[in-house]
Amino acid sequence: MKRDDKSRKPLLTRVNRIAGQVQGVARMIEEDRDCAEVLNTISAIHSALRGLESTLLEDHVRHCVCDAAKEPKRLEQRLDEIITLYKRRLA
Amino acid sequence: MKRDDKSRKPLLTRVNRIAGQVQGVARMIEEDRDCAEVLNTISAIHSALRGLESTLLEDHVRHCVCDAAKEPKRLEQRLDEIITLYKRRLA
Amino acid sequence: MKRDDKSRKPLLTRVNRIAGQVQGVARMIEEDRDCAEVLNTISAIHSALRGLESTLLEDHVRHCVCDAAKEPKRLEQRLDEIITLYKRRLA
Amino acid sequence: MKRDDKSRKPLLTRVNRIAGQVQGVARMIEEDRDCAEVLNTISAIHSALRGLESTLLEDHVRHCVCDAAKEPKRLEQRLDEIITLYKRRLA
Repeated sequence: MKRDDKSRKPLLTRVNRIAGQVQGVARMIEEDRDCAEVLNTISAIHSALRGLESTLLEDHVRHCVCDAAKEPKRLEQRLDEIITLYKRRLA
Repeated sequence: MKRDDKSRKPLLTRVNRIAGQVQGVARMIEEDRDCAEVLNTISAIHSALRGLESTLLEDHVRHCVCDAAKEPKRLEQRLDEIITLYKRRLA
Repeated sequence: MKRDDKSRKPLLTRVNRIAGQVQGVARMIEEDRDCAEVLNTISAIHSALRGLESTLLEDHVRHCVCDAAKEPKRLEQRLDEIITLYKRRLA
Repeated sequence: MKRDDKSRKPLLTRVNRIAGQVQGVARMIEEDRDCAEVLNTISAIHSALRGLESTLLEDHVRHCVCDAAKEPKRLEQRLDEIITLYKRRLA
């Protein structure tokens, strides 16, 4: 999806923060830190990823799926993607 | 969503099976059955519910959302619903 | 797990409420109600089940697992169950 | 939890792979890649994190919780942690 810098930058900031959390897990394992602490950090990474997912999904539906609405074939393909993404979430 | 008997019946069969599983949990608690057994039955109910959810979501997208495609306002409303459902799944 | 009436009754009340929600889904499908409404009710059932699961898990750990602590073999078996339950949650 | 190199190394390899996947998401956003592709990569990261979580949880229960079994106070604290971790998973 084509984004301008204004909308891309906050997404990249969020991804970089998640990357930092993942490096934090590596450091905790290297330092033999308590397992419960490491597991809690992993839960925090899941939450951050879900927040990112939520934003990306909304962008996708409001732009990519809406843009495809004028062409039945393209809309069908976009809606198939939504079904696959949702089902993957349910798995 | 308007369904004919042919597509409604299998859905109702699945819901009735889930209702039976829920009654099974009540019986297990009444009989002081082992907690791990009760917790496993609850996990099985979650899986059955997700299967039902997956079928209903696919029906909804292929029929309700597709039907709305010719009218931008209605399509926007249907896509808003998809975003809300997906986000609720992420929560 | 052996329970007295006082601790069993609230659990059964919660299970019966969930059973009522499941019957509600059957009724909504019979009445061809909007899919998004049915999907939201299913999400509410998942939440109610998770609440029940949380209470049962806490009971199990505080009673069954604690009781087994004096006998290494029994404790090991109870901890294996916890691992299996947790992993099933992760699946 | 105290680990030897032999058990620590494979964990760090898995964390580094996840870190690579997260960087992959950043690159995809920079390259305006299709949203469905980015969302699928995020799902793959969730799965890899859950696999890591599963291994860490098993280690924790088999070592930290078992070690605490001889001291009721310490066992109670470890079991409280398990309840908190499990409930966080349910949230």
